[in-house]
Amino acid sequence: MELISYVTIGGTIAFAASGALAGIRKGLDIFGVTVVAFVTSIGGGTLRDILLGKFPIRWLFDSQILLLIVVVSVITVFFRKYIIKLDKTLLLFDTIGLAFFTVKGLEAGLAIGLGKIACIILATVTASFGGVVRDIILNEIPAIFHKEIYATAVIFGCLFYFVLQYFGLQTGLIQNLVIGFIILIRLLAVIFNISLPKILQNQ
Amino acid sequence: MELISYVTIGGTIAFAASGALAGIRKGLDIFGVTVVAFVTSIGGGTLRDILLGKFPIRWLFDSQILLLIVVVSVITVFFRKYIIKLDKTLLLFDTIGLAFFTVKGLEAGLAIGLGKIACIILATVTASFGGVVRDIILNEIPAIFHKEIYATAVIFGCLFYFVLQYFGLQTGLIQNLVIGFIILIRLLAVIFNISLPKILQNQ
Amino acid sequence: MELISYVTIGGTIAFAASGALAGIRKGLDIFGVTVVAFVTSIGGGTLRDILLGKFPIRWLFDSQILLLIVVVSVITVFFRKYIIKLDKTLLLFDTIGLAFFTVKGLEAGLAIGLGKIACIILATVTASFGGVVRDIILNEIPAIFHKEIYATAVIFGCLFYFVLQYFGLQTGLIQNLVIGFIILIRLLAVIFNISLPKILQNQ
Repeated sequence: MELISYVTIGGTIAFAASGALAGIRKGLDIFGVTVVAFVTSIGGGTLRDILLGKFPIRWLFDSQILLLIVVVSVITVFFRKYIIKLDKTLLLFDTIGLAFFTVKGLEAGLAIGLGKIACIILATVTASFGGVVRDIILNEIPAIFHKEIYATAVIFGCLFYFVLQYFGLQTGLIQNLVIGFIILIRLLAVIFNISLPKILQNQ
Repeated sequence: MELISYVTIGGTIAFAASGALAGIRKGLDIFGVTVVAFVTSIGGGTLRDILLGKFPIRWLFDSQILLLIVVVSVITVFFRKYIIKLDKTLLLFDTIGLAFFTVKGLEAGLAIGLGKIACIILATVTASFGGVVRDIILNEIPAIFHKEIYATAVIFGCLFYFVLQYFGLQTGLIQNLVIGFIILIRLLAVIFNISLPKILQNQ
Repeated sequence: MELISYVTIGGTIAFAASGALAGIRKGLDIFGVTVVAFVTSIGGGTLRDILLGKFPIRWLFDSQILLLIVVVSVITVFFRKYIIKLDKTLLLFDTIGLAFFTVKGLEAGLAIGLGKIACIILATVTASFGGVVRDIILNEIPAIFHKEIYATAVIFGCLFYFVLQYFGLQTGLIQNLVIGFIILIRLLAVIFNISLPKILQNQ
């Protein structure tokens, strides 16, 4: 319970910050920035709960999460001048959110006994949908299909989770290792410009 | 019941007209125009009911609303030549729909005892999602994050609702005052090119 | 049961292939291609089941469908060099998927006693939403509002279904006739560049 909560809060803060930064970059006003922060941080979990049929959606009744998002938005706006390179900070927060919510989505699937492929899909949905909606409403190409590794990081993270689980590690340890692993491979991929080979059309 | 019905019908007609106009402007055929009108007018309420877990979605069983949307589409297409300035008419209908559906979303939240932030979010979703989907499927930048006040009008409208409610006004009166207030501030903002200060990146 | 299954499998394969081809054309890696194939083939049915309130969404528990989509993706990637004209093949698969899922959506509506307009809407949602999401996440203008007949083909297909049903034909026969009819009118429309008249703005 404590650990689930830690994963939820970590992902929520990271995605709220990434949404707020994306809104600031687009020149929105303070309400617009907060709306984008909100959509980014609850988008993935909302779609996951819709697919699983968990209604009403929990954040409607969770003022703490809602307040947390508002506070993160305001703090991000307030400290924006200390964030020298907006694009890199956005990428970092986006990656942290991705890592946390991958674990959250995967465990939601495991908890109701879904198969491995379905668990991976649920993890992908939970981790990426908030960012996809953020990018679509700001009229950017969704990062998920951009040049950098994204869905790939989620999928490798899930496979790593299954491996660690197979070796019988404790859940809290698995969570932290997988979160670190996803952040590491995405950042390394961005820094060294690594990506899986593209499927060439006529080869 | 009568008043809820009046709010629903008003918002549905306004958004159906705004969707039909947007479709005409893109040069769609009569079916395409009707599809856009439909998506625009039921989009917000559908997402609200999904979040609240009200299934099956009501319009599936409400032939009157569906027929109303088809009739509004056909009338809009028929009288398009009398609508001299398409863009301004679209903005007007969009604003009227926004005002009606803000009230509807807010009251849906109050009815089930949600907190104030959650009520504002529900109002924003109900009022803006139809227009967002309309803009995305027509490949426009969603109006919600455009230059004009939009989410801001919804949020101020909600705050005004809470104030009027605090002073104990009757529900029907509150609804009409808030609807008028939202239409007024959005139109004034557009006419006088007023907006909240943008969050500047390095200041 | 057997026939419903045939319609589901046909539509799933066709849309998975169309999604995979669209992903290959955008230069995604193997995971990206599979994600697009997945979203395209389950998008329409997922939104339909959400509107109807059928939870949890069935594919979460249906490893066969999930495996089918992965296999279709891999096969499409493998045989891409034999697919000379990518755009035309994509259009063909998209059209086949459209035809199959129109029938599936329409019958889901009839099964719960919806009115004719609601059935047509459900068919349109089921048949087109996967392709719309595919196009939006790949930052293309959704094909549904493109130059070619699309929503129009779905609507004519539904009307044809109602006519055949009125004359008392057997369900399996109706399904195949309607599927053939939709594929025929869309392909003819594309080949001969036929479309319904656009609604001109000032006429």
